[in-house]
Amino acid sequence: MIAPMTMRESAVRGVKVVELRHARDAVRGDLAVIEFAEVLPFKPARCFWTYAIPGQQVRGEHAHRECSQFLVSAHGTCRLRMDDGTRQEEILLDRPEIGVLVPPMVWAEASGHSADSVLLVLASHAYDPADYIRDYHEFVRIMREIAP
Amino acid sequence: MIAPMTMRESAVRGVKVVELRHARDAVRGDLAVIEFAEVLPFKPARCFWTYAIPGQQVRGEHAHRECSQFLVSAHGTCRLRMDDGTRQEEILLDRPEIGVLVPPMVWAEASGHSADSVLLVLASHAYDPADYIRDYHEFVRIMREIAP
Repeated sequence: MIAPMTMRESAVRGVKVVELRHARDAVRGDLAVIEFAEVLPFKPARCFWTYAIPGQQVRGEHAHRECSQFLVSAHGTCRLRMDDGTRQEEILLDRPEIGVLVPPMVWAEASGHSADSVLLVLASHAYDPADYIRDYHEFVRIMREIAP
Repeated sequence: MIAPMTMRESAVRGVKVVELRHARDAVRGDLAVIEFAEVLPFKPARCFWTYAIPGQQVRGEHAHRECSQFLVSAHGTCRLRMDDGTRQEEILLDRPEIGVLVPPMVWAEASGHSADSVLLVLASHAYDPADYIRDYHEFVRIMREIAP
């Protein structure tokens, strides 16, 4: 069975939740795919994955000024919480066919990682520490200025 | 601890085995990263991952005419066998920090997947069935013509 890509918009500004095109095959195994030009509004410059995350840890806890990201739980489960300064959504990522597009200036946190969690992130920009906003109150202040 | 990227060339033409830059942190968890411009000789156009692969299945079993790929075992283990028509190498992929660059015209097969295996592939081209050589004897014949 091949399932087509479907997409829904989150209440959080600019966030999209994507069910990726994927194939299920009990004999051959399963496959999910992102054709970048079709799914992403950016060309990825970087890819990283987090793993062996202790269950009580919260990862992320920042917004990016310019970098967009696309997140997939490639294995295991975790919770992704997003916040645009006004609206919030929390999503359980428990299937490797589900991706979440997180645009710039959205606060994101990943928590509740299962011991076998692998969270895959495609990012639009190379790593730049200056692109991170790591203070939530500063994030909210900036959002009130740019989107009052 | 942050481990830098290191790379070795395989005996198989054009194949490189990369230990990616990665961070180990017993408190925060681990992270591995590919800055594309630094690691890859191509700009990825597509990303896919295979999972729930029955242990006896062999995946891949083709070469690409033009598409380059970079493969990472993001979770679990599998064996990757590569063949340029003259030389072969088989690598056990058992750590999410190890990536393998497979250039065009290298036959590749993945086998021995653990039940929890997730094999992540970054590809230089969008999906094109005409780019695949799925017959091993045809592959060897072409290789003898272009690299006798």
